[in-house]
Amino acid sequence: MTLGRGLEAIFSPRSIAIVGASQDASKIGGRPLQLLQKYGYAGTIFPVNKSGGTVQSLPAFQSIEALPETPDLAVIAVPAEVAVDAVEQCAARGVRAAVILSAGFSEMGEDGARQQARLTQIAENSGMRILGPNCLGAVGVAEKAIATFSVVLEERMPDAGSVGIVSQSGNLGSFTMRQAGERGIGISRFMTTGNECDIDIADAIAFLARDPGTSTILCCMETCRDGAKLIEALSLAHDAGKPVIVLKIGTSDAGQVAAASHTGALAGADQVFDAVFRSTGALRVASIEELLDVGHAATIVGSGELPKGNGVALLAASGGFGVMMADAASAAGLAIPELSASTQRRIRAAIPYAAPRNPVDTTAQISSRPEILTEVLSAVVDDQACDLTILLLSSSLFLPRLREVYVRSLTEVRQRYPDRLLVLCGSGPKDILAKINAMGIPTVEGIDAVCKAAAGLLRLRAALSKTHANVEVARAVPLSSEAFANESKAKAVLAQAGIPILEERVASDLTSALTAAREIGYPVVLKILSSDIAHKTEVGGVVVGLATPEALAEAHAGMTTRVAEKAPDARIDGVLVAEMASDGVELIIGTKKDPIFGPVVVAGLGGIFAELMQDVALRLAPVDERQAMEMLSSLKAFKLLDGARGRPKADVTAAAKVISSLSKFAVAHVGSVAEIDINPLLVRPQGKGAVALDALLVPVSRAEGTR
Amino acid sequence: MTLGRGLEAIFSPRSIAIVGASQDASKIGGRPLQLLQKYGYAGTIFPVNKSGGTVQSLPAFQSIEALPETPDLAVIAVPAEVAVDAVEQCAARGVRAAVILSAGFSEMGEDGARQQARLTQIAENSGMRILGPNCLGAVGVAEKAIATFSVVLEERMPDAGSVGIVSQSGNLGSFTMRQAGERGIGISRFMTTGNECDIDIADAIAFLARDPGTSTILCCMETCRDGAKLIEALSLAHDAGKPVIVLKIGTSDAGQVAAASHTGALAGADQVFDAVFRSTGALRVASIEELLDVGHAATIVGSGELPKGNGVALLAASGGFGVMMADAASAAGLAIPELSASTQRRIRAAIPYAAPRNPVDTTAQISSRPEILTEVLSAVVDDQACDLTILLLSSSLFLPRLREVYVRSLTEVRQRYPDRLLVLCGSGPKDILAKINAMGIPTVEGIDAVCKAAAGLLRLRAALSKTHANVEVARAVPLSSEAFANESKAKAVLAQAGIPILEERVASDLTSALTAAREIGYPVVLKILSSDIAHKTEVGGVVVGLATPEALAEAHAGMTTRVAEKAPDARIDGVLVAEMASDGVELIIGTKKDPIFGPVVVAGLGGIFAELMQDVALRLAPVDERQAMEMLSSLKAFKLLDGARGRPKADVTAAAKVISSLSKFAVAHVGSVAEIDINPLLVRPQGKGAVALDALLVPVSRAEGTR
Repeated sequence: MTLGRGLEAIFSPRSIAIVGASQDASKIGGRPLQLLQKYGYAGTIFPVNKSGGTVQSLPAFQSIEALPETPDLAVIAVPAEVAVDAVEQCAARGVRAAVILSAGFSEMGEDGARQQARLTQIAENSGMRILGPNCLGAVGVAEKAIATFSVVLEERMPDAGSVGIVSQSGNLGSFTMRQAGERGIGISRFMTTGNECDIDIADAIAFLARDPGTSTILCCMETCRDGAKLIEALSLAHDAGKPVIVLKIGTSDAGQVAAASHTGALAGADQVFDAVFRSTGALRVASIEELLDVGHAATIVGSGELPKGNGVALLAASGGFGVMMADAASAAGLAIPELSASTQRRIRAAIPYAAPRNPVDTTAQISSRPEILTEVLSAVVDDQACDLTILLLSSSLFLPRLREVYVRSLTEVRQRYPDRLLVLCGSGPKDILAKINAMGIPTVEGIDAVCKAAAGLLRLRAALSKTHANVEVARAVPLSSEAFANESKAKAVLAQAGIPILEERVASDLTSALTAAREIGYPVVLKILSSDIAHKTEVGGVVVGLATPEALAEAHAGMTTRVAEKAPDARIDGVLVAEMASDGVELIIGTKKDPIFGPVVVAGLGGIFAELMQDVALRLAPVDERQAMEMLSSLKAFKLLDGARGRPKADVTAAAKVISSLSKFAVAHVGSVAEIDINPLLVRPQGKGAVALDALLVPVSRAEGTR
Repeated sequence: MTLGRGLEAIFSPRSIAIVGASQDASKIGGRPLQLLQKYGYAGTIFPVNKSGGTVQSLPAFQSIEALPETPDLAVIAVPAEVAVDAVEQCAARGVRAAVILSAGFSEMGEDGARQQARLTQIAENSGMRILGPNCLGAVGVAEKAIATFSVVLEERMPDAGSVGIVSQSGNLGSFTMRQAGERGIGISRFMTTGNECDIDIADAIAFLARDPGTSTILCCMETCRDGAKLIEALSLAHDAGKPVIVLKIGTSDAGQVAAASHTGALAGADQVFDAVFRSTGALRVASIEELLDVGHAATIVGSGELPKGNGVALLAASGGFGVMMADAASAAGLAIPELSASTQRRIRAAIPYAAPRNPVDTTAQISSRPEILTEVLSAVVDDQACDLTILLLSSSLFLPRLREVYVRSLTEVRQRYPDRLLVLCGSGPKDILAKINAMGIPTVEGIDAVCKAAAGLLRLRAALSKTHANVEVARAVPLSSEAFANESKAKAVLAQAGIPILEERVASDLTSALTAAREIGYPVVLKILSSDIAHKTEVGGVVVGLATPEALAEAHAGMTTRVAEKAPDARIDGVLVAEMASDGVELIIGTKKDPIFGPVVVAGLGGIFAELMQDVALRLAPVDERQAMEMLSSLKAFKLLDGARGRPKADVTAAAKVISSLSKFAVAHVGSVAEIDINPLLVRPQGKGAVALDALLVPVSRAEGTR
């Protein structure tokens, strides 16, 4: 089935039936009916109510069967107990889509989940698309197709525009729609997916990706029930060149617990979502405010004008505000290059006492001679050292005296430099802001917010211009249980997959260990080999730096005793004698199977630091070597690999190759391998490679058994 | 001179002279005159203008001398060239205070600085207080004493109230005053200090600390020119039980550069300011919005009702919003305890399908039956597991139908539980918010913002209830230059100050080194000793783990060769033979003399990690052992000291003792010691102490010479 198929029946239906239509506009069966009439929906409305008669001055029908024609869309607003039957009747009648506003399904436990499963079945059998249940419905804004009971529409209908809003949470989506209206953002479509018995957020995104009336997609997510579908939908939008800006909530442990209890679905690890958005070119934001600010800015400037680099020119009427802007811009990852000498001269020519370097301080002069803004702003906007200009007007636009002059300046500067990106920071009367937006200048109220929005535009450009890596990995024959037996077997399997390991031998007794050491060459490492011992060091099962046969013999005896004491029940497969290596930086790398999105690959500094400092890079598997390199360089600890404090640079190319190979291996063996740990991967100095010193493979069954 | 003395002449003068009074209200000499009359200042106004005549319908005087009586306050609005003379005349006439709005002083280079120095001189000689120059002036709100040309007053006069606003930046302060008005925060006094030739921000804080009309102080800072004065002022406010909430800008490198160029003053290290605010009980915030939100909340609830713990109950009409609130609360450091079984039963009794654990989700029921809010909110507010409740109403208060019912509910709940802390998150009509605020319920608009404000109240309680440590340190006799000669001398001095070191001997040649090693006992460490070599390892000047006389001899020979090669010009004082120790965690501790605030003490994990991870604790010196312990436990790396991953716990008590001793030593020797580095301090397992393995003392002269 094509993603997002059939959603036009919800957004632009020729006719709508309201099942459970009510006279009372505060009821969920009354509000859509009232709103459709109030805002002038042009199609046919069929109230359905078992009592018949007239509802909100329209003739009502007693059932779906009784309707004079088959409606495109049915809005279901009857209690859960009878909703399923109503939906069945809609499907039988050939209705193209149903929006179930009623609650009382999977969110209410097993009985509700059973009812919801029936809905899923109906959708599958009939091909009718179903939105909800337990959702706040949808709106086709230009069409006034209102299939929602959102109280936000009690206030006013959103302006029609090109921004699509999709949300799992009804209230969150509804609030986003309201705030978008407050900021003058025009909406194309609005959809909330609730329990997602059929249509999910991926369908909604995919539909908007193809919808010619939508240019930007704002998305509020709590969870994901089908990872592959979400990835496909986000990729569709990316390929269509449409920004998808995502607020994914449930980032904290407390939030995830709340989300799980709210949606009844596993929230999924937050970092995995980061990886999903990164790999599909979606832009993740941290708050509703940022969602709206970036969405607004992206829509106003259009994708053609996104900033090419992170250099920002800051212009304020006060040194203090300049300092705050510099702080906020730095925190948002923007650079503040010094303006060129000629720009500085132009500024000083207009205002002798101005601070012209960047941030530019026009001083209080600007409020007694506001007309000088034109020349100063022209000079700044024209400076090629910066990719965009942020002009701070704080609350000046509320003053009629200044407002007129400033708007005239902005008009002039915009005409002179139509290709240069300019963003305004401040507040003002709505009509004035709309006028400024119409010039292609976004307006954002706070200093932190405007810098985050500017950084968002920059990230958006990177996200939209990125090409999919397209690492193809064929499924491999499942690994035999043998491969999971111990370190030696695991390493042998990984070595075949191209991951370097050191020379090592399995030895059943001291004599063969001595032979192995002689062949390998001293010094050697001695390790216990047992499928029952996952953490060898904890039972004294590793001794390093054995330089002589005597030392090896002594270590062998000691280890045998210690292991027998600390792990008396472990079945021992022998010992491992391995080449000794220590010159390098130790990483931990591994893979894990995410229950929603499949294998992910992680990399971090070895030892206790990755854990203490939460310094780990995570991506969806597979990754190519370029992506693996990018993972390594995103670590705070990267400096250690990159030759900090006069250390030799480590062979990061080799390390990236190992990460990529491991990630492909995890995908190829997704059916049999649940987790892989390489701890440590020793990354030697440049040109000398990287080797896995220890490895652990966890089979699918074992990992699932312990979950 | 008493801090903050004489500022009443600025805030509540009986008469005001405007020097440079202008007919044109858009000029800086015209606006104060217009505003004083417009808002009805009750005292006498004397326009001073060299042409005399009538200015803005008041008779003008040609000079200060010509005034019929001596005004309490003179506002100086004439160009810099003549401003100093005018100020001199004011002082001669016995005017109590002058506010210099004119620019063109130290911000304009050397000439301006000379003029400003004359102003400082006048203030000192005459006792007349001077505000500015290059400032936006001051306002006594209740008194309508307007000595400012802030455009914000063109719009409206702030409401009188108990919040004082002080700012170095005029615009920043002015904007804060405006936004405070927008949020219904009443103002007592407003002051901007500009170039601070006499009155500085510390004076302003100290005055407000004693001002009976001010209960909360909001402060915008860019820099500090006199550290001791600021600390005294903040301590005064703390002792008066008044919250001081500080927005210190210039946190980033880019911001500090901008601040330095703007104010012409050294901005100071940002972390040192953190330490200052921490030690004086001031609350630092990160943005104007947070300044206003916390200021508003603190003023509305009053200091008596600040939350006792970090448990917060979250109540929303939507699961999605509940999840967002949980995320935001966690990010702000709040806990979200599960509500008691009886609370949950009460909630379920009112709304059968509610999620009652915390966050509480009332479901959309609340918008069709809004009256149930009273019972649900009562149940939540009454739950003793939480210290405060945050109720999210988002934009519901804009809907008349819901608004009335909700306001009634809030009134009832507040009457039933007057001692329980309740904060509202949402927006609504101003008069409705004011009504809710009047019940003692603060209102904050965004989810992140309300959680930050709640956390701010919590931090405020901690800050206000903290007692000063009062570590007394007497000045010591300055150290002789001898103490700075090399590692051995430095350690000897520190050992006298109570900092443990290992046994070690200075040896001039191999023979005496061998003797020393025999006496100390093998294994030993050998180090080069030279006042010209600060970083011994870089020249191969440290060899550890020497177990035999042969090894020592070999190391001695090798080191001599290497050092001669790599540092041929260094004067060598011999070698150091020291006891070997390695079992423990290595810290770096040290002190540095901040140019504004004096000695600070720092502690971090040794090796490259403190630097890579920016994981360092910094406090004003001296610290007592309790504060030193708190420094250690604030480190991310504290887990390493505290027995992470089965390691033995380290002797943090001993480490804290060393940090405290070192900080006292730095204060005692502030005249001669500029910097101290102990790198590493080896912290051994519990009960085994901590020892300085290496130490460096930098004398004041050398540090200042290299700056």
